[in-house]
Order: sequence, then C-alpha cells, then structure tokens
Amino acid sequence: MKKIALLGSTGSVGTSTLEVVDQHPEDFSVVAMAAGTNVDLLTRQVEKFKPELVSVGNEQAAVELRERLAGKSQPEIVYGAEGLELVARHEAANFVMTAVVGSVGVAPTLAAIEAGKTIGLANKETLVSAGPVVMKRAKEKGVSIIPVDSEHSAVYQCLQGERKEDVARVILTASGGSFRHLSREDLQQVTVEQALAHPNWSMGAKITIDSATMMNKGFEVIEAHWLFDLPYEQIECVLHYESIIHSMVEYKDRAVMAQLGTPDMKVPIQYAMSYPIRKDLPTEPLDLVKIATLHFAAMDYERYPLLKLAYECGIAGGTHTAVLNAANEVAVDRFLKGAISFLDIEKVVRKTCEAHAGVASPELADIFAADEWARSYALVSI
Amino acid sequence: MKKIALLGSTGSVGTSTLEVVDQHPEDFSVVAMAAGTNVDLLTRQVEKFKPELVSVGNEQAAVELRERLAGKSQPEIVYGAEGLELVARHEAANFVMTAVVGSVGVAPTLAAIEAGKTIGLANKETLVSAGPVVMKRAKEKGVSIIPVDSEHSAVYQCLQGERKEDVARVILTASGGSFRHLSREDLQQVTVEQALAHPNWSMGAKITIDSATMMNKGFEVIEAHWLFDLPYEQIECVLHYESIIHSMVEYKDRAVMAQLGTPDMKVPIQYAMSYPIRKDLPTEPLDLVKIATLHFAAMDYERYPLLKLAYECGIAGGTHTAVLNAANEVAVDRFLKGAISFLDIEKVVRKTCEAHAGVASPELADIFAADEWARSYALVSI
Repeated sequence: MKKIALLGSTGSVGTSTLEVVDQHPEDFSVVAMAAGTNVDLLTRQVEKFKPELVSVGNEQAAVELRERLAGKSQPEIVYGAEGLELVARHEAANFVMTAVVGSVGVAPTLAAIEAGKTIGLANKETLVSAGPVVMKRAKEKGVSIIPVDSEHSAVYQCLQGERKEDVARVILTASGGSFRHLSREDLQQVTVEQALAHPNWSMGAKITIDSATMMNKGFEVIEAHWLFDLPYEQIECVLHYESIIHSMVEYKDRAVMAQLGTPDMKVPIQYAMSYPIRKDLPTEPLDLVKIATLHFAAMDYERYPLLKLAYECGIAGGTHTAVLNAANEVAVDRFLKGAISFLDIEKVVRKTCEAHAGVASPELADIFAADEWARSYALVSI
Repeated sequence: MKKIALLGSTGSVGTSTLEVVDQHPEDFSVVAMAAGTNVDLLTRQVEKFKPELVSVGNEQAAVELRERLAGKSQPEIVYGAEGLELVARHEAANFVMTAVVGSVGVAPTLAAIEAGKTIGLANKETLVSAGPVVMKRAKEKGVSIIPVDSEHSAVYQCLQGERKEDVARVILTASGGSFRHLSREDLQQVTVEQALAHPNWSMGAKITIDSATMMNKGFEVIEAHWLFDLPYEQIECVLHYESIIHSMVEYKDRAVMAQLGTPDMKVPIQYAMSYPIRKDLPTEPLDLVKIATLHFAAMDYERYPLLKLAYECGIAGGTHTAVLNAANEVAVDRFLKGAISFLDIEKVVRKTCEAHAGVASPELADIFAADEWARSYALVSI
C-alpha cells in the first residue's frame, strides 16, 4: 500500500493523482494533502479521500476549510509554507507527490527527502532551481526521485533494465507548443487566450505558457541533467508535433528505446506511484493506425531562444538555473496579467540571467537568495 | 568473454555476427562454426577467426576445406547434420548463435539447449516448427533464448525491467515487404528478381520472399507466442513502412515501449551477444529529423492471407505450424526456381495446411514426421 502525501491536490497533476488513487483504493491511499486557496475543491477532496492532515495556502483558507467540514470528521488542518512541509514529512506517508507549481516546491521536497520518503516529482522547479542541493541530499538519504513529467517518466521507463554507462543520449520530444506554426513576427501579437490553448496536453496556465516559449523544454533539459546524471551534450531535443513519443534514450549500440502513448498525465502519474510494477489504467490505448503519421523536425534554437538560454544556464550551473526559473515565473505572471507582451517574456528572462553574478557551488540559502534577487529584478527589468 | 559457436557463418546473419566479433575481440571469440557449401568464404572466415571446430554441409565440402587450409593450423573439420550438432554442443562454447535458415536449425538448437548453452536465436523455424518441444526443454534446462530477429529483439528489449504479467499486447511492425504497393492482381505477374528487392533490409533470398508474402510476419507472430509466452490475441501486427520502430510492447497502464533504430541486423545480433549489457557499435545513429515522418497502417489480412493462416495454425497448435513452415519452405523454393508463380506460394501452403491432420501435443518425432509429410505434399500439391 502506497500511503501518499499529495502536495498540490487541486492542480492539474493533483486532481489526476486523486483519480488514480480512486481507481486503485486497494493500492493507494492519501494520508495528507496540501493545496492553495481553492477551498471548494479541496473540501470535496478531503471528504472523499479522508486524509489525516491537510494544509492550505493561508490562515483564512484554513478557517474556511474548517467551517466547511464542520460536523464531519475533521483532519488536522495547517497552512502556509510550514503546513506544506508538515504534509511533506507526514509520518504516515511513504510516498510524496510534489505537484505544486513553482519554486515553492523546493522546501517541501527537501523536507520529504530528509524524512526518507520516495518522491514522485511533478514540480520541475525543484530540480531547475535547487538541483545541486536536492540531488545531493537524495543520494545521501538513499531516496528515489521518480519523475512524473511525461518526458522524464518516458526516459525513466526507457532506462529500466539498462546500465547508465550504456546511455549515449537522451532525446526529449517537444510538441512545439501552442504557437508552433507562427513566425517570430506573428508572436508579437499573440494574446493570453491564444497562448493557453495547447494542442496536445491539458495543463495549468503557467506550464502551457512555458510550453509555448519552449522554456518548459529548457527546464526539462535541466531536470534531465539532474535526474539522470548526464552532461548537457548528451541531452537533445527534437520537435515531434503529435506528442505520441514522450521521449527516448539512445544507447551506445545505437538502439533507441522510446515510450509512447496517448497523451494523458495519469499514465506517468500512476507509473511513479506503482513503480516498479504497472497497474491497469482506464485511458485510451495508443492507436498508431488511427494516428497514421508521426512527424519529427529539428529543434530551432533561434525560434526558441529560451531553450538555448536554458542550456547556457545549465552549463553555467550553480545559481544560474534558479535565476532562470525565478525570472521566468515573474515574466509569465506579468504576461498572464497583461503587463507585458508574449515576446517580452524572453526579454525579461534573458536580461535577468545576464545581470546575475552567480554562485558556483550553492547552498540552499544561496539558491533562495538568487531566486529572490531574480524575482525583484525581473519585475522591473523591462 | 562470450565463446561463440556460430551455426550458419556464411549467411547474412552469420557474416554480420563475425563483423560484431571482429569489433570486440576482447569480448567475443568464435570457437566453432558451421556453414553449408560456400567453402570460399568459409576458408577466409576460418583463417581469420581460428575456430577449434568447423562443420560443413557435406563430405565433399569437408575435403575441399581441408585442402584449402593445407599447411596452415587446421581446426577439427566435421560435416552434415551430425557436424552441425557437434558445433552446437562444442564444449568450449558458452553461447550458440543459430543463424542457419530453415527447419534444419531445430536439431542443433535442441542440442545446444541440452548442452546448457545460451542461445542467440536467428533461426525462426526452430520455434515455428518445434516451439512446444524447444521451449519446454529450454525451461527445463534453465537456458536463455535471446532473439536475434529485429522484431523479437525489440520486444525483448522493451520487456527489460518489466513484469510479464503487466504486458497487455505485443505489437510487431511490418514494412509490408517488396510488393507493398502492389494489388493482388499485380502480384500475379511479379518475378523472382522483383521479389528479392526488399526496401529496407538486406537479407537472404528465402526471408526476403517470406517478407513479400508476409509469411515472415506470420512466423514472427508464432515465434513471439513461444518466446514471450503470450496467447495469440495479445500479439498484433501493424504496417510501418520505414522499419524504424522495430516493434513495441503495450503494458496494462497503456504505456507503450518501443525499440527504434536505423535498420541494421548487427544491432540485434550484438545485443543478443552482449546481453544484458550493451557495447559500442559503429552503425548509423537514428536521425528522426532526417527521416521526418513515420507511417503506420492497419495490417490487411486479405492482402496477406499467409499471415492470417499463420494465426490460424498458431491457434490450432501442435504440428500445424511445423507444416506451415515446411510447406512454405518448399513453395518458396519452387518459386525461386521458377516452377510456380508468386501467388502460387500461398496456394501451395494453404492446401498443404488444410490437408494436414495434426498432432496435438507433439514429440520431436511427430514434428519431424509432419515436416517431412508437408514437404512431400507441398512439392506436388499444385
């Protein structure tokens, strides 16, 4: 039985995680969960899954949740950054799904590692920001970090039964995002609504924008570097419009292993939870005959400068990727609020990265400081 | 160090096996080899690889080989069916590559199993004809049979690190063969030369014809049934013209693992020899950007009646698949000699299969008898 602490229960990955739990009540239970301020949805989730401990974003949400659950069996209710960490290290849990969005995921993931929990990692900022610190502690504590992102889950699956030293390269596939058919000129004009319409995956707003700028793929490159302990020259990206091949691993005998499937986040979510075995999942089976054609094209780094920048920051190492992530979070937020244009996202991020001095072998405090600095800078950089 | 006994050294898989040995002299050596009557090539192979034991097709070839090697250090030279078995159970060998074509591969493969050798199986007739007997003995002796056929090697690779009970289906890819763009009517007229021009793979004549009739895929379905211990309803075929995805395994969570690569038999050959690790191989890396498009289409069982027949014989079990294989061997031989037309291959095979009474739980003697009966019948059936 996997006893799950779920961080980010009301988000896209969080709700899918609960669907998976619901499908396999004999294998999975939720003993703790954390959400932000969507108390409506969280109330229904708590009633259904009956966790022992629940954390919300702030005190007001905690009061609200307590009122909603009045007269019913109540979990312990906590809130804020401290509450999130309490959920992450909740004693009854043996598996922590970190499905919160943004660099807020770093501290609870580290708390879960310290507590020796197996991690299902859906928060990519954890490794993008704090890869050096997080992977070091995970190794020291002997904790497994199983990726939930579809690309990294694909790579993880392709690595099963193989030796790391036999890997030649990891090939991450990229759909090209919502604006893949537009030129750089066309991108000047695009709206928030257009940016949020991803062709293949149904995801949260932040990650959908990151997918359109290819920043998301850049983060995945950095995450792959940490997860699979590979140098950047062994991590490649290829455009694959249909999102059917979720990623690949080429071995030194030139055999390439790939993981394919109908795009559905429940597949990598359940895989992380059931690993190393697999369980039934009621999702659409892959029908290659119906799909008929899979397309591939070279990644265009001029068209997607944020991806190029991600490689540069990744190779520079230290706090550079934390700054990349923080600057991007602010820039996307400003775009979503209508404050800057779509192409300004790139400008804000690049300008912030260029202005950062960098700490080579950072401690967590250095990373948080760089993150904070980048947020202030990115807020006013253009 | 893998000490290899190579059955069929002068054929397509045999020469590729020797190329692989040549690339990794520190890992592989050939201690015994068997060939037919191509004494020219065999002489050069013996001089280069210095096996201790060599078998040839008949006494005359043995005499010839001995003369060619006069004055040089000579291996022990044997011949015929007995010689082939001596090579298969040669004491110094710990790995037997069975790369002979046709049901002549059955007896030496069984001999190798009895002697406890790990088998690299490139002779598909071994399992098509004698699957029930061969797999039973392999299990009893605890012998590994590692497939060398590109499709089964792909499936084998996709199964690494997974549990058999998690498999939903195996999906074998088929290029469609040399006549994939021709209608049934067009097939009336085709010549031997046209049939031998396979679009993607460079192989022997017999297997190239079997590829054009899709009999080859039918044999692969039967082989997959035995190798992976799966019922026929869990083995599917899909047309995939580029032969880049070599085959796939769908798991019960609907994740599909696939093995891809530039078509080169040296990849599965070396994999079988180096398993469970991988070694460098100087072959063309997969370039999906250059390939740009992968196509898939439903298998057409009316267009390829021999594939349909293979499923029928497989499900019927017993000696039926031995008869299918033997009848096809004779029919292809008659076609290659100009005695019957391309479409007559199907007629000969179906007529023979329909005339066969069948033995349900055959011993090896039953299989050989059915094989012999089918050969006589197929020779005169039309």
